[in-house]
Amino acid sequence: MDLNACGHRLIQSASNPVIKRAKSLRDKKYRRLEGHFLAEGLRILAEARDAGVLPQQLFYADDREPHPLSEALIAATMASGGEVIATSTDILARLSGKDNPQTLIGIYPDQLRELIHIDRASAPIWLVVQAMRDPGNLGTIMRTGDAVGAGGVILIDDCVDPFSVETVRASMGAIFTQVIATARWPDFIAWLRGGPGTLVGTSLAQGSVDYRQPDYPVPTFIVTGNEARGLPPEYEAECDILVKMPMLGRADSLNAAVATAVMAYQVLDKQGGG
Amino acid sequence: MDLNACGHRLIQSASNPVIKRAKSLRDKKYRRLEGHFLAEGLRILAEARDAGVLPQQLFYADDREPHPLSEALIAATMASGGEVIATSTDILARLSGKDNPQTLIGIYPDQLRELIHIDRASAPIWLVVQAMRDPGNLGTIMRTGDAVGAGGVILIDDCVDPFSVETVRASMGAIFTQVIATARWPDFIAWLRGGPGTLVGTSLAQGSVDYRQPDYPVPTFIVTGNEARGLPPEYEAECDILVKMPMLGRADSLNAAVATAVMAYQVLDKQGGG
Repeated sequence: MDLNACGHRLIQSASNPVIKRAKSLRDKKYRRLEGHFLAEGLRILAEARDAGVLPQQLFYADDREPHPLSEALIAATMASGGEVIATSTDILARLSGKDNPQTLIGIYPDQLRELIHIDRASAPIWLVVQAMRDPGNLGTIMRTGDAVGAGGVILIDDCVDPFSVETVRASMGAIFTQVIATARWPDFIAWLRGGPGTLVGTSLAQGSVDYRQPDYPVPTFIVTGNEARGLPPEYEAECDILVKMPMLGRADSLNAAVATAVMAYQVLDKQGGG
Repeated sequence: MDLNACGHRLIQSASNPVIKRAKSLRDKKYRRLEGHFLAEGLRILAEARDAGVLPQQLFYADDREPHPLSEALIAATMASGGEVIATSTDILARLSGKDNPQTLIGIYPDQLRELIHIDRASAPIWLVVQAMRDPGNLGTIMRTGDAVGAGGVILIDDCVDPFSVETVRASMGAIFTQVIATARWPDFIAWLRGGPGTLVGTSLAQGSVDYRQPDYPVPTFIVTGNEARGLPPEYEAECDILVKMPMLGRADSLNAAVATAVMAYQVLDKQGGG
């Protein structure tokens, strides 16, 4: 095994199995198979560390001047038993799929949970998304979840991968603090009804109440549907409360991440939190 | 001038000046020079029409089966005195920069205003963004503005172009209902102080109050800073009120479009609107 001047494992060939395996994690199939994902960039890696999470493998470019914060992350990764790999800017570009790659790329175990391993009493708010397609929206919802003290995000039906590089970036580190679970709707409902929990959906349907009216008991589950179609009517029918927000303009909907956030802050307020 | 079977002007050459001019509007420089912008896709064009706005030029692919709603838009465009141009899928792909282009592309005059032509009394809420860099965030903020009945969005410093295709798409039609103005900060402040108006900024600074405390008199101007840096301290110093939202997690910030929306709905509530 080659070492560089700092004593880190040095890999300069793109065909090295360690590099090929890391690159494979850009593909959802391999992420799911291996239960690991990539996070790119000093900022997100620093947020992970602040959340108490260090990478199992950390790649940095040996041919660039290191950022002082990179050195702290490298030291922390080694101290936690992670592997630090020195490589080239060119190989980092291949790992990130960008011509101008971030200076650091980390590999992390995902925190994907089964519903039965979620402790609903651990947080007053839980976010649920259904067929969410945009990684920016999903990451932003995770970030909002972190801000309002939610326990995590439960993904229903065919959502964008919560561990894609784009989602991880938009989450601004919340991917490391929010519990992530995936479930089919019937399984989610069965689990939900096995304990306390109020399910609230935003809806344009008849009978929706203004979102400022309900009390939102602890724990409240806020469910947000697909960006274009909203929540299917049969899912709405399972909600304990359907709420609507004022829409004073020509449009009849908000961006999905925005609607989730306005609801989440309203629930936080009604619960006396914050 | 060639006509197709429907009697529409037929252009089949990508080097035709009409096509070249339309394509030039993908470039911010030409958009600003000409005061026109492109909107792509049946959904956004239908939203424009619902807001009472029809394109000056409408391009559709003559070699594809038309959508029934396309025909209604084509008829409305002609009735309003706009020009309808039949072309090919290949040329639409060049106009949109995508291999699989939308079926309709329209050219619209922008509604960029000078501050002095804004009637601040026409709406109880105005949104102000400073150095906003992400077109998705800016478009989402326009969409939120439409929903809360805001008058428009005022862009300060070096913002992403409000008339870029990405911003227009994220606005979901709000680009056609919200007044858009650009200004330098000193000019904005001078204009603001020339009439009624409360300037509210979100801030982590000492002395910020909880966002649920103030009354938010009409009209209230909500200012949101750059995604990474927030509002500069000297701009914060000019705000009448600095507010903060609860941040219960590890992060100390929300997505810029989310923060704007949570604030906007709070202001709407306090003003008794909605």
